[in-house]
Amino acid sequence: MGDKHDVIDSFLKEKLDGYIEETKTLCAQPSVSAKKEGMRECSALVVEILNRHGLAAQSYETAGNPVVVGHADGKSERTLLFYNHYDVQPAEPFELWTTPPFEPTIRDGALYARGADDDKGEFMARIAAVDAARAANGGELPCGVTFVVDGEEEIGSPSIAQFVKEHLNLLKSNAAIWEEGGIDPEGNPGTELGCRGVMGVELSVETLKTDAHSGMGGHFLPNAAWRLVRALVSLKGPDERILIPGFYDRALPPSPKDTELLEALPDTEAWIRETFGAKEFMSGLKGKQINHAVFNPTCNIEGITTGYQGEGIKTVIPARATAKLDFRLVPEQDPDDILDKLRAHLDHEGFGDVSLSVGDGAHIWPFKTSGDDPFIALAARTAEAVYERPYFLIPLIGGSTPVYAFAGPLGGIPVVFAGVNYSDNRAHAPDEHVRLVDFLNAARHIGRIVDGFADLP
Amino acid sequence: MGDKHDVIDSFLKEKLDGYIEETKTLCAQPSVSAKKEGMRECSALVVEILNRHGLAAQSYETAGNPVVVGHADGKSERTLLFYNHYDVQPAEPFELWTTPPFEPTIRDGALYARGADDDKGEFMARIAAVDAARAANGGELPCGVTFVVDGEEEIGSPSIAQFVKEHLNLLKSNAAIWEEGGIDPEGNPGTELGCRGVMGVELSVETLKTDAHSGMGGHFLPNAAWRLVRALVSLKGPDERILIPGFYDRALPPSPKDTELLEALPDTEAWIRETFGAKEFMSGLKGKQINHAVFNPTCNIEGITTGYQGEGIKTVIPARATAKLDFRLVPEQDPDDILDKLRAHLDHEGFGDVSLSVGDGAHIWPFKTSGDDPFIALAARTAEAVYERPYFLIPLIGGSTPVYAFAGPLGGIPVVFAGVNYSDNRAHAPDEHVRLVDFLNAARHIGRIVDGFADLP
Repeated sequence: MGDKHDVIDSFLKEKLDGYIEETKTLCAQPSVSAKKEGMRECSALVVEILNRHGLAAQSYETAGNPVVVGHADGKSERTLLFYNHYDVQPAEPFELWTTPPFEPTIRDGALYARGADDDKGEFMARIAAVDAARAANGGELPCGVTFVVDGEEEIGSPSIAQFVKEHLNLLKSNAAIWEEGGIDPEGNPGTELGCRGVMGVELSVETLKTDAHSGMGGHFLPNAAWRLVRALVSLKGPDERILIPGFYDRALPPSPKDTELLEALPDTEAWIRETFGAKEFMSGLKGKQINHAVFNPTCNIEGITTGYQGEGIKTVIPARATAKLDFRLVPEQDPDDILDKLRAHLDHEGFGDVSLSVGDGAHIWPFKTSGDDPFIALAARTAEAVYERPYFLIPLIGGSTPVYAFAGPLGGIPVVFAGVNYSDNRAHAPDEHVRLVDFLNAARHIGRIVDGFADLP
Repeated sequence: MGDKHDVIDSFLKEKLDGYIEETKTLCAQPSVSAKKEGMRECSALVVEILNRHGLAAQSYETAGNPVVVGHADGKSERTLLFYNHYDVQPAEPFELWTTPPFEPTIRDGALYARGADDDKGEFMARIAAVDAARAANGGELPCGVTFVVDGEEEIGSPSIAQFVKEHLNLLKSNAAIWEEGGIDPEGNPGTELGCRGVMGVELSVETLKTDAHSGMGGHFLPNAAWRLVRALVSLKGPDERILIPGFYDRALPPSPKDTELLEALPDTEAWIRETFGAKEFMSGLKGKQINHAVFNPTCNIEGITTGYQGEGIKTVIPARATAKLDFRLVPEQDPDDILDKLRAHLDHEGFGDVSLSVGDGAHIWPFKTSGDDPFIALAARTAEAVYERPYFLIPLIGGSTPVYAFAGPLGGIPVVFAGVNYSDNRAHAPDEHVRLVDFLNAARHIGRIVDGFADLP
């Protein structure tokens, strides 16, 4: 094993410049999904790169931009899936870039370009890792490898869930490596084991066909703002407990391992107080209780719009009121189920007149990998060897990413986050870059995962 | 008495054209307080008119536009106060006027101009009434008469309360005739006996120094929108009962006479349903219960602003939230007292972090005249003689006007509304006008009030 890892490392050190050159070519091709700029050209380039590195690739049409899939069989039946994307964020404001965003430039040991980190550099580091694992195994991959390269990640991946559903056989795999892995500000590698789902919904109520004068009608006309406020407080008690019947039915509590991992995370209370100016926290949470609270699903008011909002006073009875909410859901809550229960609750409480509408992009299932999964142990063991730092595990992050679109349909496969990121990489901002050392370490780490993946139980 | 009324009528019929000519001159002088246009010139014109008609007049400086006061003694010590204003609403949009707003024109038995009704025509009809009463009493006024002519009524009369406080002796009087009286759509004369006060207030809460991501912090960061919503529901129960301790302490219930008058008013439920599209009313009110409910003080949400209000979803935790409220107050509630009690209530309920701010122009005391007051009987008796229609009395209107600024400081004097208005006079709109018949009838009515006022108990 030590020998194979040495081969991986020397292979990558020797060929690093070549992979960086390929990354530069890929970054030089703009592919701004928000602006529909260069998407076809870039997807063709990704097909070409995958094929060149021995992964038979094809571009698949979707309702939006094409998804590229590349695959190579290995000695083992087991297959490892990689999720990446070839689209990038807009590069504006251009004037804040030291060198132009689509003219990739090496400077101070890093490659600067839009996409150098997110996610073209990360993609190329994985290609390098796969090549290295092949080299360390006599020219044959030890396990099957499938790359899925999305063209719409930066605009919320509107097509990917449907694409996965329609290509389950193509994507069949035993574990996945998601994008956006790397090291924390102290240089420690690690991964999150899950993320929460989200169900975004707008509540609307109309009590009158037109706003009315509060002097004339304040004592008899129904006020939409009052109606909405009463509907809102029916959803959650002052103790933050959500009052929708059945809301918590499917919510998984943290496992003993999760609790242990949460307790091991740093106490960030002081940092949060400083950053957000919060004087107190919900339910009087303190210290590491804040870490543990991520397993509490939430009902968040994002905004309320009703009536007069300008300067001074306008003595008006609002005819209409709306509130936007998001419910952050923990494993195994289901946004469809929560929406149904919300509707039933409002009806039962006499708020049948409060209508619900669900927007795009905020209807995401939670996902969770067990901290005891052997795949996690493999990622941790190999990372500690490469980075020479302890590996951290975050049982659940508060936010939501569409990992569920793969993990669930593919049979609940374990997922890790591993890659080229470090804390100051300027992803989404001017002077985005990837450090060459991070590129190399990510490839060394992932090469070891590919190498060891076939031997997992 | 009949003889004196005949003199009043013949005096007015004979001299009507002259008073209309003076009204035209006054209307030709723009005096748009919102645009600070012509205010000094118009106040000088009002002084000139009052002096010309035997009322010694003077212009008084205030923090805003001058207030003009004119006075003449009468045979009796008793004094009748008139409240009018010389400022007008902006005339825009000019293109919707048949003839230009500041070129007064007679057409179809009416005078068209900005201010022809509100309030220059009304003012001149009162000048005519005073002249007529003088003529009917041997050239001497039967009672003292004081005119107060405001220059800021159309912008909320910000200076008048202070002016009254500083000139109590100058304004000492036994009753007042307010502006904006006239006849209802059926041609019946009448008056309201009171109006509600109002206390407008903005509630604000800030829980964070910046909005935060709902995924990151939704389970521990305090949400300003939730905080505000909870503060709001602490103010009023679902049964519409206001929960601020002591809120109803000073609220006068309707007198037996008020109840009788409210019951005599028409049932407007069907009209309200049609006009506002209301399917049901607060607390299930129906029919004439709606009339009676005007004696219920209110807590109205005018508007709420917090968080994201654009299209779609933005998963944000709002740092700040504000709600504008108005409390409509019944006689003898006091807006200062209600504000104090609101603050105490919020503090007691644990909402010390919710701050209150009181804007301009929505801090008005209620006022009330007894339906049994002899002054009301005089107004009713004389109106029925002039209009040959029954006189209606509305015990309390839901809205708020600053009558209290006079009535209270002057010792709780009774107030009636009497004047030139009819339902289609287009006040504040293009083609504002006063019908000559309404001008004449208002002068005949008010002339009779001036004539009979000294004889009241």
